[in-house]
Amino acid sequence: MLHKIINLTVRDVRFPTSLEQHGSDAMHTDPDYSAAYVVLDTDCGLKGFGLTFTLGKGTEIVLCAVKALAELVVGKSLQEIVSNFRGFYRLLTSDGQLRWLGPEKGVIHLATAAVLNAVWDLWARAEGKPLWKLLVDMVKDQMLKEGYPAYTTSCAWLGYSDQQLKQLCSDALKSGWTRFKVKVGADLEDDIRRCCLIRQMIGPSSTLMIDANQRWDVAEAISWVSRLAEVKPLWIEEPTSPDDILGHAAISKALAPLGIGVATGEQCHNRVMFKQFLQASALQFVQIDSCRLGSVNENLAVLLMAHKFQVPVCPHAGGVGLCELVQHLILFDYICVSADLRNRMCEYVDHLHEHFTSPAVIQDAHYMPPKDPGYSCEMLEASVNRHEYPEGDIWKLEINK
Amino acid sequence: MLHKIINLTVRDVRFPTSLEQHGSDAMHTDPDYSAAYVVLDTDCGLKGFGLTFTLGKGTEIVLCAVKALAELVVGKSLQEIVSNFRGFYRLLTSDGQLRWLGPEKGVIHLATAAVLNAVWDLWARAEGKPLWKLLVDMVKDQMLKEGYPAYTTSCAWLGYSDQQLKQLCSDALKSGWTRFKVKVGADLEDDIRRCCLIRQMIGPSSTLMIDANQRWDVAEAISWVSRLAEVKPLWIEEPTSPDDILGHAAISKALAPLGIGVATGEQCHNRVMFKQFLQASALQFVQIDSCRLGSVNENLAVLLMAHKFQVPVCPHAGGVGLCELVQHLILFDYICVSADLRNRMCEYVDHLHEHFTSPAVIQDAHYMPPKDPGYSCEMLEASVNRHEYPEGDIWKLEINK
Repeated sequence: MLHKIINLTVRDVRFPTSLEQHGSDAMHTDPDYSAAYVVLDTDCGLKGFGLTFTLGKGTEIVLCAVKALAELVVGKSLQEIVSNFRGFYRLLTSDGQLRWLGPEKGVIHLATAAVLNAVWDLWARAEGKPLWKLLVDMVKDQMLKEGYPAYTTSCAWLGYSDQQLKQLCSDALKSGWTRFKVKVGADLEDDIRRCCLIRQMIGPSSTLMIDANQRWDVAEAISWVSRLAEVKPLWIEEPTSPDDILGHAAISKALAPLGIGVATGEQCHNRVMFKQFLQASALQFVQIDSCRLGSVNENLAVLLMAHKFQVPVCPHAGGVGLCELVQHLILFDYICVSADLRNRMCEYVDHLHEHFTSPAVIQDAHYMPPKDPGYSCEMLEASVNRHEYPEGDIWKLEINK
Repeated sequence: MLHKIINLTVRDVRFPTSLEQHGSDAMHTDPDYSAAYVVLDTDCGLKGFGLTFTLGKGTEIVLCAVKALAELVVGKSLQEIVSNFRGFYRLLTSDGQLRWLGPEKGVIHLATAAVLNAVWDLWARAEGKPLWKLLVDMVKDQMLKEGYPAYTTSCAWLGYSDQQLKQLCSDALKSGWTRFKVKVGADLEDDIRRCCLIRQMIGPSSTLMIDANQRWDVAEAISWVSRLAEVKPLWIEEPTSPDDILGHAAISKALAPLGIGVATGEQCHNRVMFKQFLQASALQFVQIDSCRLGSVNENLAVLLMAHKFQVPVCPHAGGVGLCELVQHLILFDYICVSADLRNRMCEYVDHLHEHFTSPAVIQDAHYMPPKDPGYSCEMLEASVNRHEYPEGDIWKLEINK
């Protein structure tokens, strides 16, 4: 079966999460978690579903970019693509005219990720396997019983009240969570108070991470985080500009004596940038993203580089669909690359999973390996219809308010 | 006069340059030099013109991004913008939803450049000055008599025949050119033959630069360029991925004993990346671009950093409109920052200037300071109408061929 791709559609799906401050941080104060949602149709009826994650405004730009890439995909067969996947990847990223718009970064790379995610989903469905198993089976046939350890970001978004923080921490502890991430960076005294509150709630044996979403410059990051050392964070995430590699190296060096590592990656735009961070000892935790890098292809390259440098991978998954996708990659990483769980865990945000046909399954704070064929990108048709921007019911209501 | 901005229009203008292989290089084999062309209207009738340069396909994506930024511009007065230009710059680049698409890179940053270029043009027109003079007058009132030294890239695009190369070199020498750039990177033996031919034509006292447009990996760059050392190139431009800072540092170190520097910047996506290159001694020539960085604002930051590191700035101008814009910046650099012409020159490509109302003026291989008010972005209305994509006559003809 060749599975010829006969059509590509892309839709602008937005969830009005800013209304309740879900996802709020020091730099992204009003995100509407959104997706450029791609569906591939084949001549045999099988479909592939892919997406990239966005924050609302500008999703239409990513749609426009996906449409520009569509002509490179439609008409090709799955067999043709996977028999020379490197060539197909280069075709998408090296078009003599389009590459000027990146290369391999920003809008055009987000679009590449969405399209390739759908291709990988299609391939895994054609093989009747969940994506992680398609990957793992390429190397060896093995399974996980206990699932992959997760941490939660859902308890401590920046816009939440103390009352909300306490309630959410308390609920999470009851559900077995032992690893917690807190958003910081807007106000130092407020950060100290909130972090102390959470450390008190979770106790000394639980793990706490802090995340500044690029709010600081280099000197500011060092002094601010030093003030938060008392709550013993495992890492400071995104302390400064995602492009300031040598800045991250300076921060890493300054914070090492305090036992605090630097984590980054959710806005690291491609494999070449990850190479810089690893070569410069600029991070101690690699946070891959399933929708910013060029899909599985480029994420595999980063997993292998991280392994070479012996830096643990702790994926970013704070966004719509990101948990669903990245769980496949981290299972592959454990089974086939790292074989190690020390200081390793995958982010989890308890949010918007109900819109997917195969939502991520968490048991006792672990990702349970997904079993359905594909890359877990397919959304419920009713969800897409309701949230499509700007015609869906949700947005019609918002706009007419 | 407040100059309130009441409207922003953006048009997709494409010149079918690929038909004759103008602009062809190792990575961009069929560029149609194009622009997302922005016009700002104000309540007093004054207009501002800006653009960013693209290679054809995907220009519609940049238009879409410009439209997303338009709401942040329309309704503001020029006075309001320039009285807090830093705040306005941050407003465009730090929107809580849109910044996810970059941040400050790729499509969204090209759009920022186009919009801000129009704002700067408007400001300079409001002051009745060419942009360089607006900038220079901020510091001191000085003028240049001889113009700024230029080099030509027009003689040796990769797709040209030997016959064309010879004729173009011969013509250029007669017009006073003494600095020449040659595209390389597709085939080593072909490069050796072409470079030797050109070195022979221009003689030992002229300057020759070579440009690989990111074609190689690090080891390949070093061995390939070493083979070309006999033609004594001043620099190798874009030897590898524009994101591989430490790779550029390794190449710089390896080629230094041969007297060959590394030049890069036309796809360096923001000031933070330039900081990495300078800190890591990864380049010996800084090639700013007037349409990839965030307009005058971000280019000034890079000029100052380059000065701090004592690295000469030799702007990129191989694209439609780029010569017109960047000449303003390099005049400012000479008059107010570097006061130095050693190893400094600005790229010139003799192409498409006839579509601008104030085209760049070259005399004896020097850029003559422009005198018309503004940032020299305004195109002839007839040119825009003919080349607007896909409705203009030129494209209707191409499409119906």
